[in-house]
Amino acid sequence: MASQEIEALTGALARLPGLGPRSARRAVLHLVKKREGALIPLLSALQAVEERLATCSICGNVDTVDPCAICADPRRDARSLCVVEEVADLWALDRSRLFPGRFHVLGGRLSALEGVRPEDLTIDQLVRRIEADGIDEVVLAMNATLEGQTTAHYIAERLERYPVRLTQLAHGLPVGGELDYLDEGTLAQALRARRPVA
Amino acid sequence: MASQEIEALTGALARLPGLGPRSARRAVLHLVKKREGALIPLLSALQAVEERLATCSICGNVDTVDPCAICADPRRDARSLCVVEEVADLWALDRSRLFPGRFHVLGGRLSALEGVRPEDLTIDQLVRRIEADGIDEVVLAMNATLEGQTTAHYIAERLERYPVRLTQLAHGLPVGGELDYLDEGTLAQALRARRPVA
Repeated sequence: MASQEIEALTGALARLPGLGPRSARRAVLHLVKKREGALIPLLSALQAVEERLATCSICGNVDTVDPCAICADPRRDARSLCVVEEVADLWALDRSRLFPGRFHVLGGRLSALEGVRPEDLTIDQLVRRIEADGIDEVVLAMNATLEGQTTAHYIAERLERYPVRLTQLAHGLPVGGELDYLDEGTLAQALRARRPVA
Repeated sequence: MASQEIEALTGALARLPGLGPRSARRAVLHLVKKREGALIPLLSALQAVEERLATCSICGNVDTVDPCAICADPRRDARSLCVVEEVADLWALDRSRLFPGRFHVLGGRLSALEGVRPEDLTIDQLVRRIEADGIDEVVLAMNATLEGQTTAHYIAERLERYPVRLTQLAHGLPVGGELDYLDEGTLAQALRARRPVA
């Protein structure tokens, strides 16, 4: 019953992950009631991002500058590279602030089913970065899925002849994980990678 | 670690009701990855609303047209008026599609504590609408709070001398409500308003 523009805004918000029709409506109500305090700030933030949106030509991150803020940060260890499947993975790892180096976004994972081949990912660019930038360590941070692990194996093979320390994320029990509720695959990994008690 | 613009957008989204920092970040990621499909539609929807945002001069609803879509709808019963405290209440009732008439937004509720007096609400405008528009029925749809009910009583007194059918929303058990979990006030209301079994 609201006007077309308000319905359109509700619809656009409802399509965001984490928002449904009901919460989108509450968000719109908040925006229209707080024009100066909420609507205009959100509008100008969106505009600023839309105008400057760019894919980093070095690592494949999405940012408003190219090179992205991470690649341009001199405090980052330029000799350490963390390879991820997607930009979302990069953001998740960066949020944890645990990795002090830079990133490389593959843009997906190898998949026979979906017809994704090595040349569809940024693997050649990764090799070129390793050749050119004097990289010491490459951390393979693929998802713990069949396709993620296939991709990790493929990259490990491609990098065999380079003098880099190649590591991958540990697999095992997640923090707070209860044995009772974990799948057999995770349990098998955790058991296989068991370590001496410190 | 992301650029200032992306952080600003994340912050603006995180302040919407129903979104926190984590879901705002996921939403931003979705927006930057789907520039054409998500970012630009949301941006133009926001722009359209921002440009045309208006408070309905008849009922107080917020819309992009004045009179609002509800007041302008000829299929609505113009002789039946539902009085609510806030625009949010209007939207909630309108969403249910159960009320075929029009609305009147008070802009709040009487409150000694917060110093809200009758002249701070749109009660005079309500009286004028009743005088001018040939209203038959007024439904008082205030919240079931002390202040909401005080406001309803006050309005009922003000409208005493007009030939309108004055009703208010029924109080009682909410759908799915279990006696065991309901407060005494609700139980008392439900008992007091008990009805013969049909």
